[in-house]
Amino acid sequence: MRKRGIKMDIQYDCVILGHGPAGLQAAIHAARKKAKVIVLGRAEASSLWRAHMENYFGVKGPVSGEELIRIGIEQAKESGAEVLEEDVVKVEQIEGDAYMVTTETKKHLNTYTIIFAMGVSRKGLGLKREKDLIGRGISYCVDCDANFFRNAKVAVVGNGSAAADGALTLSKIASEVTMITDDLNISKSLDEELKSANVELIKGDKIKELIGDNALTAIRLESGRVVELDGLFIEKGAKGAMSLAALLGVQMDPETFQYIVTDRKQRTNLPGIYAAGDITGMPFQVAKAVGEGCVAGMEAASYAIKKRREQKGAQSE
Amino acid sequence: MRKRGIKMDIQYDCVILGHGPAGLQAAIHAARKKAKVIVLGRAEASSLWRAHMENYFGVKGPVSGEELIRIGIEQAKESGAEVLEEDVVKVEQIEGDAYMVTTETKKHLNTYTIIFAMGVSRKGLGLKREKDLIGRGISYCVDCDANFFRNAKVAVVGNGSAAADGALTLSKIASEVTMITDDLNISKSLDEELKSANVELIKGDKIKELIGDNALTAIRLESGRVVELDGLFIEKGAKGAMSLAALLGVQMDPETFQYIVTDRKQRTNLPGIYAAGDITGMPFQVAKAVGEGCVAGMEAASYAIKKRREQKGAQSE
Ligand SMILES: Cc1cc2nc3c(=O)[nH]c(=O)nc-3n(C[C@H](O)[C@H](O)[C@H](O)COP(=O)(O)OP(=O)(O)OC[C@H]3O[C@@H](n4cnc5c(N)ncnc54)[C@H](O)[C@@H]3O)c2cc1C
Ligand SMILES: Cc1cc2nc3c(=O)[nH]c(=O)nc-3n(C[C@H](O)[C@H](O)[C@H](O)COP(=O)(O)OP(=O)(O)OC[C@H]3O[C@@H](n4cnc5c(N)ncnc54)[C@H](O)[C@@H]3O)c2cc1C
Repeated sequence: MRKRGIKMDIQYDCVILGHGPAGLQAAIHAARKKAKVIVLGRAEASSLWRAHMENYFGVKGPVSGEELIRIGIEQAKESGAEVLEEDVVKVEQIEGDAYMVTTETKKHLNTYTIIFAMGVSRKGLGLKREKDLIGRGISYCVDCDANFFRNAKVAVVGNGSAAADGALTLSKIASEVTMITDDLNISKSLDEELKSANVELIKGDKIKELIGDNALTAIRLESGRVVELDGLFIEKGAKGAMSLAALLGVQMDPETFQYIVTDRKQRTNLPGIYAAGDITGMPFQVAKAVGEGCVAGMEAASYAIKKRREQKGAQSE
Repeated sequence: MRKRGIKMDIQYDCVILGHGPAGLQAAIHAARKKAKVIVLGRAEASSLWRAHMENYFGVKGPVSGEELIRIGIEQAKESGAEVLEEDVVKVEQIEGDAYMVTTETKKHLNTYTIIFAMGVSRKGLGLKREKDLIGRGISYCVDCDANFFRNAKVAVVGNGSAAADGALTLSKIASEVTMITDDLNISKSLDEELKSANVELIKGDKIKELIGDNALTAIRLESGRVVELDGLFIEKGAKGAMSLAALLGVQMDPETFQYIVTDRKQRTNLPGIYAAGDITGMPFQVAKAVGEGCVAGMEAASYAIKKRREQKGAQSE
């Protein structure tokens, strides 16, 4: 076996991105195996939060999604997992087959494994010609496409951490950055960063029309204002699979490039990286999400505990 | 497309073997897609029936398995599925990529798809030398091994439909058949068949010792009685994966030959045949069972509905 010179302390066995049904079930099963587990994300951002359902085995319907998630958070905590209501803005590989996860308030969490359970976001604006203009001024991933807009005029639209973090990234690349938001919902520290950055904030307004023939040249807002630009980034909610997983090198479904590819043990192509729930593709159902979460949690915990043991052995040699 | 001359009426879109969490979740999802669904098996035979659990997302624990299954049966019925408390004793392929399922009371059900959700049975007797004598007189599958015992003296041990049906099969092959049962629990019609067949029934007794050096030659019962024999079939509970699925040609896990191999859509190697729950392998957990059941149910329903449409089209040509 190779010896590694790990200097860094690995705090977590398992960092779970998302606390919908997939992430919470993963947390329950990983924590019950005595792994050190933290679950990130926002309860109200789960697809289930506003749903009512009656097709989940053993639960009399109709039951509110909010109630299920509240119980799930209690179960995760009672099983021994930490729960932190913050979005993740960055995931990197560090030495020793480990990973570092950065949250929106700039907490750095080192971990042996990550479970991506971020669900799916239906992320278009639903505007006329939106699809035609993809790649011709419209992008859905700042982290993927920002570099195409060096010294250009760009806007970001969205209310969550993905839009805010995207605007900050763009402010270092583009010449002018506008952020359009009708209901901003981000952490205080991200809000402060945004204010001190070179970003024009348009609050309480929405995009009404996309202007441009072969490529986007401007947008018209509901207030009537027209903003000329070269690029528009649509970043609704929190960072999704493309910005966090694909950029890390996780294999995506080659047809849609939206879903993470896993095997029957919920492993991705990268060691220590798992995925569960809507993020692995259809059907978008709670039962499927918990099934995959259960398997991912147990697999990740076993992998991490083995890894921790190995590295302890290597250090004491 | 090939035209087929189907004469037989296919009654069901989906026959589900097992009403534990996997089978019931499959029934809920298949029936909600408007497929014609029937669920077979016995509630009390589910591994979950006597369990208490607290690690299933959204359900405050500890909750009794019996309660979950009772709710699950209600959900399946409300979704439009039939529920029939009978074990399956035979599964065959019939014309037109369809299947026929025979129950313990000799009901014949024709169907486009089958979902195997029969769980796992811990099926050994736990006796000394039991493992050494496997293949040397001891077998766990009448349907697989009966022919090795032509004109021999054999016994079957078990309380359920698998043991009773096994004894009937053996009575046509072996010269002497004894059935040992301490708590017989089978349908009335199977019981009547058993009585009129050439089978000696030993009730209220148990096997205490396996006798024989290189091969089994006799068994000693708790009552003290010794029965000389060439073969002993251990058939606890209902027929399992080996007798029903493997004999049909369903691919089994090559290492253990106990679990059914599926892809991520819960499809097996045979068209229209799916599997879900403990029967596909570890982890043996309710969350995993419902996740697989959900996917199997939706896949089977879509497949069957398409098949039914195709065959209607072919008939009306
Ligand atoms: C209106 C509606 C009705 C529905 N009805 C049903 C139904 O009747 N039955 C049924 O089975 N299913 C139903 N569903 C689907 C069900 O809600 C989803 O399948 C399920 O919620 C998926 O679970 P998940 O854990 O994969 O993702 P989600 O529940 O969507 O959870 C995603 C989580 O990821 C977090 N997250 C996202 N990005 C980040 C980030 N960058 N960092 C950290 N965390 C992040 C979010 O905050 C959230 O906590 C319905 C969905 C909707 C929208
Ligand atoms: C003591 C105990 C405690 C447990 N605790 C937990 C826990 O805390 N958490 C957890 O998640 N899991 C727990 N489990 C595991 C859980 O019960 C199983 O994972 C789950 O029941 C598997 O579901 P299933 O639908 O695949 O199979 P089962 O629930 O075992 O259902 C099998 C079904 O198949 C039927 N069947 C079998 N043969 C035939 C046939 N020939 N024809 C027709 N039907 C047939 C049976 O009648 C039954 O209805 C526990 C198990 C046990 C034994």
